[in-house]
Amino acid sequence: MLDIRIERTTNPKQKPQVGQPLPFGKIFTDHMFVMNYTDGKGWHDARVIPYQKIALDPSAMVFHYSQTMFEGLKAYLSEDGEPVLFRPDMNAKRANRSNERLCIPKIPEEDFVQAVKAVVQVDQDWIPKEIGTSLYIRPFIIATDEFLGVKPSKTYLFMIILSPSGVYYANGMNPVAIWIEDDYVRAVRGGIGEAKTGGNYAASLIGQVKANQEQYEQVLWLDGIERKYIEEVGSMNIFFKIDGKVMTPQLNGSILPGITRDSVITLCKEWGYEVIEKRISIDEIVEAYQSGKLEEVWGTGTAAVISPVGKLRHEDEVMVINENKIGQLSQKLYDTVTGIQSGKIEDTHGWIQRVND
Amino acid sequence: MLDIRIERTTNPKQKPQVGQPLPFGKIFTDHMFVMNYTDGKGWHDARVIPYQKIALDPSAMVFHYSQTMFEGLKAYLSEDGEPVLFRPDMNAKRANRSNERLCIPKIPEEDFVQAVKAVVQVDQDWIPKEIGTSLYIRPFIIATDEFLGVKPSKTYLFMIILSPSGVYYANGMNPVAIWIEDDYVRAVRGGIGEAKTGGNYAASLIGQVKANQEQYEQVLWLDGIERKYIEEVGSMNIFFKIDGKVMTPQLNGSILPGITRDSVITLCKEWGYEVIEKRISIDEIVEAYQSGKLEEVWGTGTAAVISPVGKLRHEDEVMVINENKIGQLSQKLYDTVTGIQSGKIEDTHGWIQRVND
Repeated sequence: MLDIRIERTTNPKQKPQVGQPLPFGKIFTDHMFVMNYTDGKGWHDARVIPYQKIALDPSAMVFHYSQTMFEGLKAYLSEDGEPVLFRPDMNAKRANRSNERLCIPKIPEEDFVQAVKAVVQVDQDWIPKEIGTSLYIRPFIIATDEFLGVKPSKTYLFMIILSPSGVYYANGMNPVAIWIEDDYVRAVRGGIGEAKTGGNYAASLIGQVKANQEQYEQVLWLDGIERKYIEEVGSMNIFFKIDGKVMTPQLNGSILPGITRDSVITLCKEWGYEVIEKRISIDEIVEAYQSGKLEEVWGTGTAAVISPVGKLRHEDEVMVINENKIGQLSQKLYDTVTGIQSGKIEDTHGWIQRVND
Repeated sequence: MLDIRIERTTNPKQKPQVGQPLPFGKIFTDHMFVMNYTDGKGWHDARVIPYQKIALDPSAMVFHYSQTMFEGLKAYLSEDGEPVLFRPDMNAKRANRSNERLCIPKIPEEDFVQAVKAVVQVDQDWIPKEIGTSLYIRPFIIATDEFLGVKPSKTYLFMIILSPSGVYYANGMNPVAIWIEDDYVRAVRGGIGEAKTGGNYAASLIGQVKANQEQYEQVLWLDGIERKYIEEVGSMNIFFKIDGKVMTPQLNGSILPGITRDSVITLCKEWGYEVIEKRISIDEIVEAYQSGKLEEVWGTGTAAVISPVGKLRHEDEVMVINENKIGQLSQKLYDTVTGIQSGKIEDTHGWIQRVND
């Protein structure tokens, strides 16, 4: 149990106007959570303080060797006005798996969840109320040693910042067009692909830019070895509905183990779908498309929840999925996950945690 | 040509005492170079200012998506007391190759070199004089957009900091023991391996820690695909002398194109050695060792210059190279490169640039 000091701002910011469309990840609340790590002392000085800049020495390790980790989750207002979180224990677990790969000291899972709840509690008036909006929560750790040698840092900052956010994609729950990248590689087995760390995202930017130039919104990455097996989309896991069955790439060490991915698998199984987690080659998808069996494609992620895919391009093959419309199962998944999050649908899985308990 | 504003400190620090051993990358000088990039405006506001902390918003992109680049080079005092740089044009070129892969805006090569010279000139009294010491120069770029979406930043900081440094390895020019890693992977073709960016170093930390636990100082990485071909050591390129010939892995998209690597290839060729750049499998090295033909192994890098390898471990095979002593060619390369740097040996390649011209 962390002893968290709370220091409230004396100068609160103006909250976004109700009814105005919210951007994603651009507005930040009045407070943030901070905790220090010092070698020999462990994690210490947990505090919620006014949102403010961080002053770091230019030699701080994060600027040079990117020893970092981050997580992403959301707070919602349930039907009865209570702030709730969706499966924060999963984020805490995943954070520690990332920490392990990056040689960052672990944070006890219950401390991680307690810290998230503490800062959300202080800023709970910032949780937006409109449908599709939420308070995006970004926990992250940065290495702060003032030293240019390549070795794990002995000091770290763990911070949590909060951003009232609208839908992730500017054009809402509309089918996205996805470019399948076969030149650049995001990650490889044995690398850091399954960790939520900056380097993976830095590696992915060039594919994103290339896709955008071709009028595609997102990139689907193939495996780094054979460049044949489907891995994940820039910031989402990917699902296919083929001939009535649901398929998604199996976790293999280079795919991020998404929490929405896990929730979608659980729901689909409950609804009677056969869910297959396996290596999926791009050829298999093209074949399914050509034989008319590729019924739906969607991405899953905390930011977008469910993101229907309307178009998939691989080399010269442009596949238009479900006439570029939102599929039935994609819609049902979106409605169900967001329904559970908002409390409109009963939470039979224990996925929802109240912030104020 | 940059218009660089110079603001000198009014509160200079104490310089390290002459004769005291200098650490690597821990002490920083009185000034730093800073230049901003803003989308639409380009690189602007070049300045040398007192060394100071950087204040960034906690949402700054560098903390989350590691969109960064860095370089490393050194300033030396030549025999006649003039501060000189070793091949800074090569760093400028490589910086832009890294920038390209990371979607960071390029810096004109001549501006990069001018910026390095400007800050070294202001702090030239910080260049240490003892043999084996130098002023380590660390140019780096960080993405500063205050935004949690995954896309290239529209604002950046380019900074150069300076650190009077002793030898990179605490025990000097002694043979190092190297662990060949076949579990974790650092980089893969199509990834960011050939770029000098934080993510590669973050990915490498776990191998480093594992090697240290086994009493090895450095890690040699194999290719990410077949885990069979030799790539590079944590912070160095690697060379082998086998049966009188010099061999080093060819640049393949996941190996850092080292400047010392290039200089060593040039020198060895001039000295009449056959230099072979090719894919080198670990089996080939073990075989050469077992048949008594593996004569020398050394690493090359800006920080350590030449680092003789005394021990190489692959699975259960521990190879002791040249009786764990510094090889003749390794020593000659070290003496020559550092001799050219200090002006003791004539620079016939145009590698040396004076700071004050």
